Amino acid sequence: MPTLVIANKCYSSWSLRSWLLLKQMGVAFDEIVIPLDQPDTKEKVLRHSPAGKVPILIDGDVTVWESIAIMEHVGEAYGAPVWPEDRKARAMARSVAAEMHAGFSALRSACPMNLGRKYGPRDRGEAVAGDVARFSEIVRQARERFGAGGPFLFGAFSAADAMYAPLATRLDTYSIALDPATQAYVSTILSLPAFQEWRGAALKEAWIVDADEVDEEAIENYRIAA
Amino acid sequence: MPTLVIANKCYSSWSLRSWLLLKQMGVAFDEIVIPLDQPDTKEKVLRHSPAGKVPILIDGDVTVWESIAIMEHVGEAYGAPVWPEDRKARAMARSVAAEMHAGFSALRSACPMNLGRKYGPRDRGEAVAGDVARFSEIVRQARERFGAGGPFLFGAFSAADAMYAPLATRLDTYSIALDPATQAYVSTILSLPAFQEWRGAALKEAWIVDADEVDEEAIENYRIAA
Repeated sequence: MPTLVIANKCYSSWSLRSWLLLKQMGVAFDEIVIPLDQPDTKEKVLRHSPAGKVPILIDGDVTVWESIAIMEHVGEAYGAPVWPEDRKARAMARSVAAEMHAGFSALRSACPMNLGRKYGPRDRGEAVAGDVARFSEIVRQARERFGAGGPFLFGAFSAADAMYAPLATRLDTYSIALDPATQAYVSTILSLPAFQEWRGAALKEAWIVDADEVDEEAIENYRIAA
Repeated sequence: MPTLVIANKCYSSWSLRSWLLLKQMGVAFDEIVIPLDQPDTKEKVLRHSPAGKVPILIDGDVTVWESIAIMEHVGEAYGAPVWPEDRKARAMARSVAAEMHAGFSALRSACPMNLGRKYGPRDRGEAVAGDVARFSEIVRQARERFGAGGPFLFGAFSAADAMYAPLATRLDTYSIALDPATQAYVSTILSLPAFQEWRGAALKEAWIVDADEVDEEAIENYRIAA
């Protein structure tokens, strides 16, 4: 059984991506959680991968890191339907997954993933609005062109949905106004049983990571431990 | 025949990655060059892809953007040996390619790709040194573990080499000191006939992109037109 090395479920958006994909693809795995921002975090991560970043998938004698590489590995090693079958949909799914991998920096930096709280709406600037608009455009185009077979970006759940899942949580956490199609997609992700399982575990964590806590008063606090 | 939409060869590191991969894989293609930082750049790029970024590969009715997605498409659509065959090497190749896709931001920002000039050595700060050290570590590990069959990271040329090629040019352009193994790898990339072809075309370009010209006196100016 492969082992997925991840960080705190409350904050680690990259960890969520790989974890959710494995769950949705029905690949059984063990997990190791290494809490972020502890004195020994770096050392613990480096024991598993020289890149020093989570997530890391250890699959027998294969070690693979970086979400997008893990996703390709899962598709190849387990014959899992990680990407849509149709080659046009597949090309778009890989393109938008890669956009997420290297982009959306304004939204990611202004609105860190934080499943423990909810914040009220506020103007978060033009760059964040641009990222939200691009996400809505991706949802609209993918759903219109390829979404007929299900509620996800390309119908059935794919790695593209796993890549955008943490972004969906941010839109909810920071009360960002969305058009109805984008809102429906965000709700689809947030109501996935696998995501609910992740969130349940996140809310039991006690660790607070200051770097991922924005300087705003929360309108809801979901964690009991923190 | 597919068409690759790219930007200026002198400056566009992302364009170089996909272009070099297609050349090395022996896939014939047409190219469209859209110069960066012109009043109509954005509009021209948007005609080909809604993400508004180059490179874009148009392959019949398939449009694919983002280097890493283009590379997977080339592997699937043309049966090209984009990644190493051995699954351990393949996993590491995809992992380090993804690291490049979303990382090395200090080196990328302090030392923009610029094939038209050469700068002298200077202290470029700790974050840049960290990126250089990580690159050297990748070269060392990949070559030691999987490099027996050739001079590239995983022996034969793969998408991982295409991803790191612009980084190799930066190390040369900015006269960054390297250990012998990393220097040898950089020389291998820079002496590739396909790279030489790209560089030759770059040096004929007349466009100057101010954002990619650092505020330092060049020790060499290679472009005649500029």
